[in-house]
Amino acid sequence: MQVVNIAFLGFGNIGTGVYKIINKNSELINKREGIKINIKRILVRDINKKRPIDLPKDLYTTEINDIVEDPDISLVVEVMGGEEPARQYLLSVMKSGKDVVTANKEVIARHLPELEKTARENGVGLYYEASVAAGIPIIKVIRESLQANNISEIKGIINGTTNYILTKMSESGVGFKDALLEAQRLGYAEPDPTFDVEGMDAAFKLSILSTLAFKTRISVDKIYKEGITCIAKEDIIYGKELGYEVKLLAIAKKRDNVIEVRVHPTFIPTDHPLAAVRDAYNGIFVKGDSVENLMLYGRGAGDLPTGSAIVSDIINACHNKNKHNYLNMSEEEWKAENAVINNNWEAEYFIRMTVLDKPGVLARIAGIFGKHEVSIASVIQKGYKGTNASIIFVTHEAKELHVKNAIEEIRTEPVVINVDNVIRVEN
Amino acid sequence: MQVVNIAFLGFGNIGTGVYKIINKNSELINKREGIKINIKRILVRDINKKRPIDLPKDLYTTEINDIVEDPDISLVVEVMGGEEPARQYLLSVMKSGKDVVTANKEVIARHLPELEKTARENGVGLYYEASVAAGIPIIKVIRESLQANNISEIKGIINGTTNYILTKMSESGVGFKDALLEAQRLGYAEPDPTFDVEGMDAAFKLSILSTLAFKTRISVDKIYKEGITCIAKEDIIYGKELGYEVKLLAIAKKRDNVIEVRVHPTFIPTDHPLAAVRDAYNGIFVKGDSVENLMLYGRGAGDLPTGSAIVSDIINACHNKNKHNYLNMSEEEWKAENAVINNNWEAEYFIRMTVLDKPGVLARIAGIFGKHEVSIASVIQKGYKGTNASIIFVTHEAKELHVKNAIEEIRTEPVVINVDNVIRVEN
Repeated sequence: MQVVNIAFLGFGNIGTGVYKIINKNSELINKREGIKINIKRILVRDINKKRPIDLPKDLYTTEINDIVEDPDISLVVEVMGGEEPARQYLLSVMKSGKDVVTANKEVIARHLPELEKTARENGVGLYYEASVAAGIPIIKVIRESLQANNISEIKGIINGTTNYILTKMSESGVGFKDALLEAQRLGYAEPDPTFDVEGMDAAFKLSILSTLAFKTRISVDKIYKEGITCIAKEDIIYGKELGYEVKLLAIAKKRDNVIEVRVHPTFIPTDHPLAAVRDAYNGIFVKGDSVENLMLYGRGAGDLPTGSAIVSDIINACHNKNKHNYLNMSEEEWKAENAVINNNWEAEYFIRMTVLDKPGVLARIAGIFGKHEVSIASVIQKGYKGTNASIIFVTHEAKELHVKNAIEEIRTEPVVINVDNVIRVEN
Repeated sequence: MQVVNIAFLGFGNIGTGVYKIINKNSELINKREGIKINIKRILVRDINKKRPIDLPKDLYTTEINDIVEDPDISLVVEVMGGEEPARQYLLSVMKSGKDVVTANKEVIARHLPELEKTARENGVGLYYEASVAAGIPIIKVIRESLQANNISEIKGIINGTTNYILTKMSESGVGFKDALLEAQRLGYAEPDPTFDVEGMDAAFKLSILSTLAFKTRISVDKIYKEGITCIAKEDIIYGKELGYEVKLLAIAKKRDNVIEVRVHPTFIPTDHPLAAVRDAYNGIFVKGDSVENLMLYGRGAGDLPTGSAIVSDIINACHNKNKHNYLNMSEEEWKAENAVINNNWEAEYFIRMTVLDKPGVLARIAGIFGKHEVSIASVIQKGYKGTNASIIFVTHEAKELHVKNAIEEIRTEPVVINVDNVIRVEN
């Protein structure tokens, strides 16, 4: 039996989940993995804070050095979140020869090169399965099951909050605000939901996944981000008529070393497996040249699903002691500025607008699309409110900039009252 | 750069797929994994057979000893299939100190205890990711990502042939025979499709998955098997009315050390993620007490998807050289006779019958169900052909034996012309 003394940095919801699993399944872990996980120290801001689990007071400390300098502690679980001081703490801990398991997407997305380098130089393990999609083992699958693949594409529903909201809007017909309120009531959305609904959370995760999949450092700042706050009931209704569900997709594509990375609301066909990812679930679709299409689906958040990934990482770190895997990426590949990012991608577009219901309007708008090399695949026209009508165009594959230019010109047409929404379509 | 000399046992479709990947992605594998895979020898039955790939004649041999006794070969890829001589060859190869990667579900399902023991005794690796669901890394996920979970349930669509046939029947409205012919035409079904359509193939895979998930040896002979040949268009039509899709599910459940293992056509709700697994795709749903619900989806067959898993296994075997993982199961757990299997499971049932269209028939049949403790959740009655009617009952959760007894009695009723089908429902 290998005994591993661990310390926690932070002990909120996720930390408590890890604690619960270690306790509940200790026998399983002893028996199957030959490992006994022993919690030696917990770093918190306030020792006297009331916590849901009653642990001996002397486990807690407010001093990071009590952990860094404790030679009995061989592994540190970081669940404090945020960029600093998490980054500093992780570096100190690794430099003192301890393995690290973290659930912190921000610190991994922003500082993977530095953290990976420090891990390698000190011969310690850096594990971060829980930083993306909680218990879904997408990182290990990319690193240890798809090595025989050139990965060309990732499409992920990797934010449970927005997926819950969009599912609610699609299935109950409520608007964004009501769906958000419901998500907040259930604890799926924060009181300030900006980070989730504007796509930042998904962008951090996509930065990590695309870096690993493409072996090219993709900085989160290079990722195009568009949130879901503008999605209206009408978009969902007309999308359904066209056979689409709307999802906040995190998309990364690589063609001949040119990379697209973008997070935005996206229509996908209702029979696409990602369309079946409902509520707060996550799903990540990967395309490789050997495996073809692979998807992983599961809970992307929550104390126990996240804890599942963390405890698995702890166990794997123990098995790999002193022989951890590192990413074989060159100095050049680690430099974010070397990634060739294309923001003028090709996609199909769903474009909804309100126009005056007059003869010739359709021809006029179609003419503008044509002028900008945007060809139309289908049109739905709906009359309403007497003089106004809704028109929905779905384009064939077109370049982002061409579509933008076309829409700019369309907006100037006197017959066009408003371009209500533009939503990209992925098949 | 680690050079690994490998040999193939067999070189059909899958072997060729592995060869293609090793060639196409050799640079990727060199660069990212530090491994050069070198094909040293290929065991075939007929050296002079025409093959799709042109390799030097002296690579081929018909003598297993040319491989077993070659000290330069450190890893053997078995893609010959079948129980014997594959089992004997694998044992010999491992006893000579070579690692083994196999795609052979039969030999793994039937002989895992012996093979695992031999691997452990000889300090060599035994890798068999490709034996279940090709490129979907379900075995590695169960073994190396879900260690912190008590797994209570597996539900899998793990046979592409039957899933293609059922999808075709569901989406094009054709009958079983026509769908089978189409599957054969496309190469998804063998000329003799028995092994697939009768559930044997899925049972072999379920035996492997349930043994790994429950750490209890589940022999394939203990698995209840029922094929899809009896699924009629009417079942699919009425199923849809009730909100179900039909799938050949491989189900394993564990409650308090009592295990159910069964392969049979199953209705699942159309919004279940497994219902979105269409055509020849596979999907495997796993429930664990920490991760909650997890599903993996992808190609469950084909030369490249299977090759993806095999090459990944080769790479992992190289990284783990002399420190392979073995299953921590006791002698008692390895004995198939020790598994407590329950064949009297509880499920909901869809029961379709043809009856005389007379007053009182429904009450009479409902009465028989009640007598056998089977309670009815919903009924659809359809009149047709004058004097006959179709009735579909969907039960609440009921015991398999109670349902069987009820149906036996219902069959003896003069008003019942036929009990057309009984299909279990999983939610």
